[in-house]
Amino acid sequence: SVGWSDLDRKAVDTVRVLAADAVEKVGNGHPGTAISLAPVAYLLYQNRMRLDPTDPHWLGRDRFVLSAGHSSLTQYIQLYLAGYGLELEDLAALRTWGSKTPGHPEFRHTAGVEMTTGPLGQGIASSVGMAMAARRERGLFDPEAAPGTSPFDHSIYVIASDGDLQEGVSSEASSIAGTQELGNLTVIWDDNHISIEGDTDIAFTEDVMARYAAYGWHVQFVDWTHGGEGYVENVDALNAALDAAAAEVSRPSIIGLRTIIAWPAPTKQNTHGSHGSKLGTDEVRGLKEVLGFDADKTFDVDPAVIAHTRALAQRSATVRAEWETTYQAWRTANPDRATLLDRLQAGELPAGWADALPTFPAGKAVATRAASGNVLSALAPVLPELWGGSADLAGSNNTTMKGEPSFLPTRRSTKEFAGDEYGRTLHFGIREHAMGAILSGIALHGPTRPYGGTFFTFSDYMRGAVRLASLMGIAVTYVWTHDSIGLGEDGPTHQPVEHLAALRAIPGLAIVRPADANETAQAWKSILERNSGPVGLILTRQNVPTVPRGTDGYASADGVDKGAYVLLEASIGTPDVILVGTGSEVQLAVAARETLEAAGIGTRVVSMPSQEWFAEQSDAYREQVLPAAVRARVSVEAGIALSWHKLVGDAGRTVSLEHYGASAAFETLYEEFGITAAAVVAAAHESI
Amino acid sequence: SVGWSDLDRKAVDTVRVLAADAVEKVGNGHPGTAISLAPVAYLLYQNRMRLDPTDPHWLGRDRFVLSAGHSSLTQYIQLYLAGYGLELEDLAALRTWGSKTPGHPEFRHTAGVEMTTGPLGQGIASSVGMAMAARRERGLFDPEAAPGTSPFDHSIYVIASDGDLQEGVSSEASSIAGTQELGNLTVIWDDNHISIEGDTDIAFTEDVMARYAAYGWHVQFVDWTHGGEGYVENVDALNAALDAAAAEVSRPSIIGLRTIIAWPAPTKQNTHGSHGSKLGTDEVRGLKEVLGFDADKTFDVDPAVIAHTRALAQRSATVRAEWETTYQAWRTANPDRATLLDRLQAGELPAGWADALPTFPAGKAVATRAASGNVLSALAPVLPELWGGSADLAGSNNTTMKGEPSFLPTRRSTKEFAGDEYGRTLHFGIREHAMGAILSGIALHGPTRPYGGTFFTFSDYMRGAVRLASLMGIAVTYVWTHDSIGLGEDGPTHQPVEHLAALRAIPGLAIVRPADANETAQAWKSILERNSGPVGLILTRQNVPTVPRGTDGYASADGVDKGAYVLLEASIGTPDVILVGTGSEVQLAVAARETLEAAGIGTRVVSMPSQEWFAEQSDAYREQVLPAAVRARVSVEAGIALSWHKLVGDAGRTVSLEHYGASAAFETLYEEFGITAAAVVAAAHESI
Repeated sequence: SVGWSDLDRKAVDTVRVLAADAVEKVGNGHPGTAISLAPVAYLLYQNRMRLDPTDPHWLGRDRFVLSAGHSSLTQYIQLYLAGYGLELEDLAALRTWGSKTPGHPEFRHTAGVEMTTGPLGQGIASSVGMAMAARRERGLFDPEAAPGTSPFDHSIYVIASDGDLQEGVSSEASSIAGTQELGNLTVIWDDNHISIEGDTDIAFTEDVMARYAAYGWHVQFVDWTHGGEGYVENVDALNAALDAAAAEVSRPSIIGLRTIIAWPAPTKQNTHGSHGSKLGTDEVRGLKEVLGFDADKTFDVDPAVIAHTRALAQRSATVRAEWETTYQAWRTANPDRATLLDRLQAGELPAGWADALPTFPAGKAVATRAASGNVLSALAPVLPELWGGSADLAGSNNTTMKGEPSFLPTRRSTKEFAGDEYGRTLHFGIREHAMGAILSGIALHGPTRPYGGTFFTFSDYMRGAVRLASLMGIAVTYVWTHDSIGLGEDGPTHQPVEHLAALRAIPGLAIVRPADANETAQAWKSILERNSGPVGLILTRQNVPTVPRGTDGYASADGVDKGAYVLLEASIGTPDVILVGTGSEVQLAVAARETLEAAGIGTRVVSMPSQEWFAEQSDAYREQVLPAAVRARVSVEAGIALSWHKLVGDAGRTVSLEHYGASAAFETLYEEFGITAAAVVAAAHESI
Repeated sequence: SVGWSDLDRKAVDTVRVLAADAVEKVGNGHPGTAISLAPVAYLLYQNRMRLDPTDPHWLGRDRFVLSAGHSSLTQYIQLYLAGYGLELEDLAALRTWGSKTPGHPEFRHTAGVEMTTGPLGQGIASSVGMAMAARRERGLFDPEAAPGTSPFDHSIYVIASDGDLQEGVSSEASSIAGTQELGNLTVIWDDNHISIEGDTDIAFTEDVMARYAAYGWHVQFVDWTHGGEGYVENVDALNAALDAAAAEVSRPSIIGLRTIIAWPAPTKQNTHGSHGSKLGTDEVRGLKEVLGFDADKTFDVDPAVIAHTRALAQRSATVRAEWETTYQAWRTANPDRATLLDRLQAGELPAGWADALPTFPAGKAVATRAASGNVLSALAPVLPELWGGSADLAGSNNTTMKGEPSFLPTRRSTKEFAGDEYGRTLHFGIREHAMGAILSGIALHGPTRPYGGTFFTFSDYMRGAVRLASLMGIAVTYVWTHDSIGLGEDGPTHQPVEHLAALRAIPGLAIVRPADANETAQAWKSILERNSGPVGLILTRQNVPTVPRGTDGYASADGVDKGAYVLLEASIGTPDVILVGTGSEVQLAVAARETLEAAGIGTRVVSMPSQEWFAEQSDAYREQVLPAAVRARVSVEAGIALSWHKLVGDAGRTVSLEHYGASAAFETLYEEFGITAAAVVAAAHESI
């Protein structure tokens, strides 16, 4: 038995009235679930999770993800009670400008929030990544420790709603979690039978528990409605289920918890009217009366309650102190690993790491995806924090670091991939969206650095996760190969055309499309050094020439770090025209320059792998690369021109592809669709 | 027993060698599955499906979806054998420029292909939509007929790969199919344990059959490896399973079929090497030898084989003739319904239908989502072909036609939504991606017209399906509401910022963002009349003023059909500046015009609900709206400026939002982020 006192029960009821008050004050929000899940969240925060309210970033903490992000009050009120820094005035400022309590929990905005949630399915899917990151962390730092004895042993807890489990991204991630046997992951599914359209019977009639059992999860069901016999919040039963989940170390756990939304609100419990709207004055009063609170007061908290819940800091201090002892013993016994941990926690790279980067000789054509694969293999020994894989396209995306084992329970090893639970090569299956969310979870958990690959066109499938990573500003790298009609015969379903523009549109995401093998190495260098927001690395399937850096007028590839640079200068002082290309089309600009120069037209070639990185540079640098005075400009990129109009301006021209591709050899497609050096030359003449 | 003759078996083996030859000739492609699934596809095309090779659009046909689109030869070779118009030279032209046999099957490109497939998961998810469309069709035209007696009774068959079942979109759609009890849907899952990274044990260890049982499907498993005892293609067992699936009318069916990829290729069977690469000369020879074919010949088909398979046309003629009798009897008995069917098949609207469209009085502010809801309810009685719903946001998206029953097995009715199997209001649950794919399936099936709604920000989740619909050019309408920071307190996870630009980027997709209630009505009118590619209708959560059309200088809303029009003319002949707005920001342009005109600056306001529709207009019309001579232009839209640079040009200015939103009242957000009339005025001064 969890042994709650009357004060605990009063604290739980206080959560309910605070949730009702907070939504009522701003006039909108989601009170229902925050009310009915009060005992669940309280149990986790006050009784079960390893946490330290005085140090939200404590390495040894359990992670909590509110996948049902619309019920942000579920988390905010626990953070208030536990003493993470939120106070009553913050709850009263819910969903208002500048408050610490926005509509949905926001990472880096509110202390104690591990992840931005709200878009359904993302939280639970990223929690799978957190659980994987926790295992990889243990493997890097303390693999020999017996289960449960390491300072790196901790758990991931998730509260998920009906909507979370309906979204495909959660299905994908949950299947992966089963294969990966993530015993450190526990999901509580709030089975309240209500979503925005009311009773879920219209769209959600599957047997969720059977589905999760099919994924290989440990499943339990706790019914607080007792089969309709009467609603009793049997916290002990939930606690026992959490005990059983914790005891199950070789499977992820899901606990289905049948609740009644907004219980015990007198008239709006069990209705969708309590889901996403304020309850209304009468109902809030009614709720307070049912719970024995003064209906005339708002944001009223018994000092005994807050004193009790904030005493969590002291209770946690004991746990923390025990952990510190174990942790310091580990540091002493593992000085090299402790040094590595310190480096990773500081977000630093090891001295001289970049010496490991390969340099590619001029002359030999290399696909940038192949160059990227070489870079990753070369970095494997020097950057243990770097790991990743592919959504079933490892060989095509070149995402496997040579010789590195798979991250996989040993018994899942195949003849193609041998692995163990602490391995490094990730296998996402054909699940791009989950891959995106899992990469985010790994980055959020820390301290490693993940990457994941698929064909560029399937970035569409990942977009929900990519946007959220961009909003959170976390350092993940998407390896998107087969980046244009250059992939050839697979045809229009597989040929990205609009994707460069559509991803450049996402605030906070950098898109980097290197022109050759050495730009690819430099791109990885910049990505790893920047260690800021997410980056999409856009790579060719087909070979592209490796240009002779430092000779014949070719600049070094260092300029990649600035997003754009002069690759080849015009033969005269001020160029007559500037050709700007990215990726596999830079070679067309180079060839066009030759023709134009031969005709006496001073032609500069700018390689612009990243518009976003270029936009970060000083005005002076940007003016140097693209002088305002040179209005004759031509962009060349095998995709839509949308993102080039601003850069080339009214006098400029774009060589682009404004429609879908086709199934044929890539050389044919470039020719038929007019993405050629001749087209660039013609456009340059027009522009001048 | 299906009773295959030696000639049938030789035909099946001919499929295998043709698949190997076709890939070998072009040098790339996917031979493995086409070889091992030869008997499966042959069984469906030659023995089971109701089809008419002489009329690929026959109303009474079964639908076949090759969800495993990479195995396009599986379909092409059956179309060749059955006589749909493909010949040996087409197979020999696989994956080459201009051929009828592109890398993945393409709708409208190759006769007999019902859907473009290749992006995994889309085929099976859209097939759920086809099955729903078939039921709705029956409900519209022949609801009283006893099961199996109607000319509208037919089935949907799908071949799905491991990848199809790993993708989240298929999980979402399969759950919906279970709720909807789609007895007319049969999926064959090719369980070959091989994907691109080899043995699927690294990422796909779930119990798929148990998962589908949990969705409420009828599940069967047929093991051609006989538990490893030896590979025998037991076609009779598969046929019996198909019989059982056909007999099950109240649940969708999945048949797990354990196969060995590329069987019986001598060395590459059961390897991922046979999945996505040519087999190589020796292996192709080996395959032919195993099968008793002349290894020196390519594309060699025994005339007896092709004569036998093409005799399908005669066998089908009998089925077709029986159907015609029933169909004509139905027409005679149901003249009004027959008239409706003829109209829908012709893609026409009924005379005078537009009279039903509401007109909204000036003065009263109305959210465009609310106006859209009014339009849909008003159209319900006149356009029975129109139906749709929402991904659990019906009340927010205003997608329910008033009084129309839900499309739902009667026993699933809830207190919020009563329905029956032939109902009209769709409930997708919180599954945006499946909604997108299902809408495509409905449109592909015909003859009805579907729409589906969610919050605009979650268009990201649907993007895979939206792109495919755009590529196919099918008429579906996405109702995307809550279209900007104007949604207010839900904050940045829910506020679209980049979405307008990112969706305008997709070729073939039209984005329409009406400025007020009457533009919304006109937008629906144009969408329904155009009946061409997909349209995203972008609607506000918040109220926007309904402008006084035809008075005070305001133009009528008819101009929406041209994508952009002069809403308010400058007071002088040639405007000094043109303000271009969309949606809820048009009111800011109108307010700014007042200030500018008061300062003596001739100011035109252009409402541009659709850049795509505007781009379709004549040069003359576009020049009329945006005269080249007027270079002072300001765009105003509560999103990134990306899609406006080309339209406003070097001298123009954009009032935009280049970063994520925040959680607060929308009025605060507009003010804090500088999306105001004052900002438009200032930008206009700069531009002039």
